Amino acid sequence: MSGFPRNSDMNVITSSIKLKVPEETPGILFKNLYLSCDPAMRGRMLILEGSYAESFKPGSPLNGYGVARVLDSGHPDFKKGDLVWGITGWEEYSLITSTRGLFKIEHTDVPLSYYTGILGMPGMTAYCGFYELCSPKKGEYVFVSAASGAVGQLVGQFAKLLGCYVVGSAGSQEKVDLLKNKFGFDEAFNYKEEPDLVATLKEGIDIYFEYVGGKMLDAVLLNMRLHGRIAVCGMISQHNKFDNPDGIYNLINIILKRVRIEGFLVLDFYHLYPKYLEMILPKIREGKIVHVWMT
Amino acid sequence: MSGFPRNSDMNVITSSIKLKVPEETPGILFKNLYLSCDPAMRGRMLILEGSYAESFKPGSPLNGYGVARVLDSGHPDFKKGDLVWGITGWEEYSLITSTRGLFKIEHTDVPLSYYTGILGMPGMTAYCGFYELCSPKKGEYVFVSAASGAVGQLVGQFAKLLGCYVVGSAGSQEKVDLLKNKFGFDEAFNYKEEPDLVATLKEGIDIYFEYVGGKMLDAVLLNMRLHGRIAVCGMISQHNKFDNPDGIYNLINIILKRVRIEGFLVLDFYHLYPKYLEMILPKIREGKIVHVWMT
Repeated sequence: MSGFPRNSDMNVITSSIKLKVPEETPGILFKNLYLSCDPAMRGRMLILEGSYAESFKPGSPLNGYGVARVLDSGHPDFKKGDLVWGITGWEEYSLITSTRGLFKIEHTDVPLSYYTGILGMPGMTAYCGFYELCSPKKGEYVFVSAASGAVGQLVGQFAKLLGCYVVGSAGSQEKVDLLKNKFGFDEAFNYKEEPDLVATLKEGIDIYFEYVGGKMLDAVLLNMRLHGRIAVCGMISQHNKFDNPDGIYNLINIILKRVRIEGFLVLDFYHLYPKYLEMILPKIREGKIVHVWMT
Repeated sequence: MSGFPRNSDMNVITSSIKLKVPEETPGILFKNLYLSCDPAMRGRMLILEGSYAESFKPGSPLNGYGVARVLDSGHPDFKKGDLVWGITGWEEYSLITSTRGLFKIEHTDVPLSYYTGILGMPGMTAYCGFYELCSPKKGEYVFVSAASGAVGQLVGQFAKLLGCYVVGSAGSQEKVDLLKNKFGFDEAFNYKEEPDLVATLKEGIDIYFEYVGGKMLDAVLLNMRLHGRIAVCGMISQHNKFDNPDGIYNLINIILKRVRIEGFLVLDFYHLYPKYLEMILPKIREGKIVHVWMT
C-alpha cells in the first residue's frame, strides 16, 4: 500500500485461545505486557521483494517488538515466569514458535518498558549505528535527524558523552525543546520551519545519523566534511511515498569529500547486546542517559 | 562552466622560457613526454568550493598527470635525467615548484607511457578502490561501469584474477568487444542500447565500481545484493550537468540490503604505491594484465 496508513486499514478482533502450549511442541505462550509501534513497521505494510522482514499478512495480527511474560513453554530455554523482549504479536496473548531475536530479561531494577526502548531494539540500533558504523571521535560534528525519536535521542546522548558537538532536527517546538533541555543537544531545529536546510547545516557535519532521507539527506550531502560518515538507519520521509520517492541530487559530494554512506539493520548486530547492556545499564542507573517516549 | 567543453574554450599559446631553474630556488624543470587527459579534469573546469583540486585558471596552461624528464633541478631529491610521473603542465616544458604527488620512475623495462595509465594514477585508482574499499572475495559478482576506461579495465581484470564474476558496461560495441575479448570480462553490454538497465543487471551485484552515476547508479541500487559495496570513483554522466544533476531515487535499498557506498580519491592512497608496484609489475611482465588506451 502507498500513502498514509488509515484507521480503516486495521481491525480489532476478539477470539479465544487455550492458555497452553500444544503438547510436545517447542512453542512459547506469552502474556504481552508492552508493545512498541516502530517506524520499520511501515515498511512491512508493503510487499517488498527481498526485504529483511516479512510483510504483514492482511487478516493476521501485526507483530513487532514487545515485552512479554512466559505463561507456558515447550522450549527448553524458556520457562514459565521468564520475562522476555523481542518479536511478539499485537494481541493479548501470543503463541511464539520461533525464538530468533528473543532475549531473556535479566535486569528488572529498571522499568520493563525500557526493553522496548533504550534496552531493546531502538537502543541497540543507536548503539551499533553510532559506534560500529560511524567511528566517532571526540570533537566531531554530529547531526541527528528524527532526533527526538527512540533512536535519535540516544545517538545524540552517546555523541555528547563522547565529547562531540551535536545538532538534532525534529518536527515540533516541543521536540526541539526536549532535545536541548532534556537530552543535552548543543543545537536543535524544527525542520518544518527552516526555509533553507542547507544554510542551517552550514557548520559542517562529520557524522550524520540518517533517519529521514529525501530533502534532508540532500541538504546534508552539501554540508558533509572531509571523510564524513553517514549511517543510514531509515528514510522515514519516504515511507509513505514508496512508489514515488524524492530524488537525491547531491551525491557527487561523496567523492569530493570522500564520504562513506552505510545502510544497516540492527538484526546484524544483536550479538553485541551483552556488551551494550554492560555499557548502558550503569549509565541508566546513574542518570547519565535518559529515555523519553514521544507520542 | 556547464555543458560540454568546446574547442573554443582552449587556445594553444606559444611563448619561450629559459631552460634553467632560477638560481637558489627548489624548482624542477621538466621536458614533458606524455600527458594524460583524465575525466577528473572536467571537474576542475568548475569553481567548486571545498574541492580537492584547484580549479583551472583561464589564461594559464591546464595541468594534469603526465610523464616527464628532468632537465634541471634545484630540488635535492631530483636530478637532471630523472624520469618522473605526476602532475605537470600541458606544455612542452614545465617549471614545477611543488613535488607533492610526484613519483620517480624506477622501472623502465615497461613503456614510459604506462605511467599515465596502469602504473600511474588510473592504476592506483583501480587498485585502492577495488582492494581497499570493496573487500572483494572470490566468486562475488562485480559490476564495473565505464569499464573500458583506464580505471575500469583494470578493476575488471583485478576482479577476474581474484575469481569474481565480472560484468562491465561501456558506450560502444567496439568497447564491449574489448571487454569480453581482451580484458576477459564474463559479460559486457552497451548501456546506450539497453532499454532496461534494471533488468540487465538482475543477476545481482556484490561490488559496484561506480564511475558514471545517474540512471546507472539507480539501476544498480535496485540490484545490489546483501552487504554489497559501492566504491564511488566518479559520476561522469553528471560532469556536464553539474547545475542540473539527475535525481537518484532508489537509495532506500542501501538499508534493505545493508549496502556501503564510499567515495574515494586516489590522493589518499598514494602511500600504497610501492605495494601496488610490487603486485602489478610482475603481472604486466607476465602478460597477465593488459592495458589499452581508448580514444
